[in-house]
Amino acid sequence: MQIMGFNDILTFYAPRIETALCGCIADRGLAQQTVADAMRYSLLGGGKRLRGALVLEFCRVCGGSVDKAMPFACGVEMIHAYSLIHDDLPCMDDDDLRRGKPSCHKAFGEAMAVLAGDGLLTLAFETMLAPQVGESVSAQLALRAAGELARGAGLYGMLGGQCIDVEKEGCLPDAQTLKQMCTLKTGALILAACRAGCILGGADEVRLCAASEYAQALGLAFQIRDDMLDCIGDAKTLGKETGADVRQGKTTFAGLYGLARCAEMVAELTQQACAALSAFQDTAALATLARQMETRMQ
Amino acid sequence: MQIMGFNDILTFYAPRIETALCGCIADRGLAQQTVADAMRYSLLGGGKRLRGALVLEFCRVCGGSVDKAMPFACGVEMIHAYSLIHDDLPCMDDDDLRRGKPSCHKAFGEAMAVLAGDGLLTLAFETMLAPQVGESVSAQLALRAAGELARGAGLYGMLGGQCIDVEKEGCLPDAQTLKQMCTLKTGALILAACRAGCILGGADEVRLCAASEYAQALGLAFQIRDDMLDCIGDAKTLGKETGADVRQGKTTFAGLYGLARCAEMVAELTQQACAALSAFQDTAALATLARQMETRMQ
Repeated sequence: MQIMGFNDILTFYAPRIETALCGCIADRGLAQQTVADAMRYSLLGGGKRLRGALVLEFCRVCGGSVDKAMPFACGVEMIHAYSLIHDDLPCMDDDDLRRGKPSCHKAFGEAMAVLAGDGLLTLAFETMLAPQVGESVSAQLALRAAGELARGAGLYGMLGGQCIDVEKEGCLPDAQTLKQMCTLKTGALILAACRAGCILGGADEVRLCAASEYAQALGLAFQIRDDMLDCIGDAKTLGKETGADVRQGKTTFAGLYGLARCAEMVAELTQQACAALSAFQDTAALATLARQMETRMQ
Repeated sequence: MQIMGFNDILTFYAPRIETALCGCIADRGLAQQTVADAMRYSLLGGGKRLRGALVLEFCRVCGGSVDKAMPFACGVEMIHAYSLIHDDLPCMDDDDLRRGKPSCHKAFGEAMAVLAGDGLLTLAFETMLAPQVGESVSAQLALRAAGELARGAGLYGMLGGQCIDVEKEGCLPDAQTLKQMCTLKTGALILAACRAGCILGGADEVRLCAASEYAQALGLAFQIRDDMLDCIGDAKTLGKETGADVRQGKTTFAGLYGLARCAEMVAELTQQACAALSAFQDTAALATLARQMETRMQ
């Protein structure tokens, strides 16, 4: 996969990840077709593929093969998609709209949405641990990369952040709790994606640390921008309702710091992210990606 | 771990698996403690540990180390525990009681129960893919064993069976659909447990096939006996309500074939399971386990 000279890695990688994801779930003929359809519905046809692109691009800048890292890009996107399905459930955020279409439980009912989320989380590991993966990547690297993503998704990562989020609803904002929640809920999987890419590319500990710095700054900037977009964004462009955070009494960066300070914070974090890239070569695309956090509208 | 002369592997392995599981989830001090508590609540303090014991015992009879297989025994028990939490949810079977105590959503609320299930499924892979596992077992065997369990749990395994179960509720029994559903919903994870144990023990393809035959017969016998116990069992011994299948209009073996024919089927399957064990040595405990399916009351 040749990406030289292509600066916008989301535009470059997203359709390729989409094609790979499309081949991961049977589209007809199963007795359990309904849950397969619900999984395809939520996994395909949308999404920036930020996390998948980070796996692939960090693997590439570390000298690894983008094609061989693809099962892990698919895995992290499946984990992300599962988390959105379960977050949208009536007992959680109760969101009717996701990426401009009815959320999974609105389209398939609550039982199938629970199963579709479970199915995607499991499929992430089926994909990363498939026999052919152990043949193309070394088993040791595959094990480490899949382990990173498991930890990023779990109790001490994304899932832990979601738990804090559920429990803090309606409470007064507290800067430390908010940052901790966001570091886990959004940051941990982005961090794991960058680290998994580095591992698959054969990076040493120095580069792993640099990638972690980049990821932590990018993840926080991404979440702050997300909070801003809930205030200043356009529902059609975003593919989801705006103003939802305020209505649900959620603690957000926009509510706590105001929009102007949020914009400054995103700019500072972008600088930090770009500085961390000095440990790598050929990082123009990763720098551009970080800078997109300052202006993105979706 | 010395198990020679100990014929009842459930009684032998269950407390050891319990101890290992206990060390897998922090019991205090997390900001996300609620979900950790919900995970511990559903994972610990109950369960036959059938699936975990199968991993350990098949590893042992193939000449592998029981201690090194323990993360995989824990993994399969976590997958099983997650499936029970989500099966009990109001949008699924809506069960209030599990192993003699309130089901997870009754004790912790629906949002935490969804998260606790997700957390246990993820923790299964965190546990099997932990860095120290790749050091004690070869990375290649760890990858294969974890992959087996992922596939057994997923769309083409346990989850697929659960989807068929959800969709068939209230329909007239159909022998073929019922067997397919049970082969997936209960059988696939039992099959994966036996195969994962063999893989970790370094088994060849012949032994893997023999273990699969044993597992398929055992899994079907287990489910048929489960259906019988819903009719003839005691709620206190079982730790769950009896008669639930009939009330919910579920398709079961007991409803389709009657209790007498079910008992014959379990006996036939037990014979098949025991016959498959001829590919191994030192299989008295596995044979005893199969024979327990004919008489077990919990």
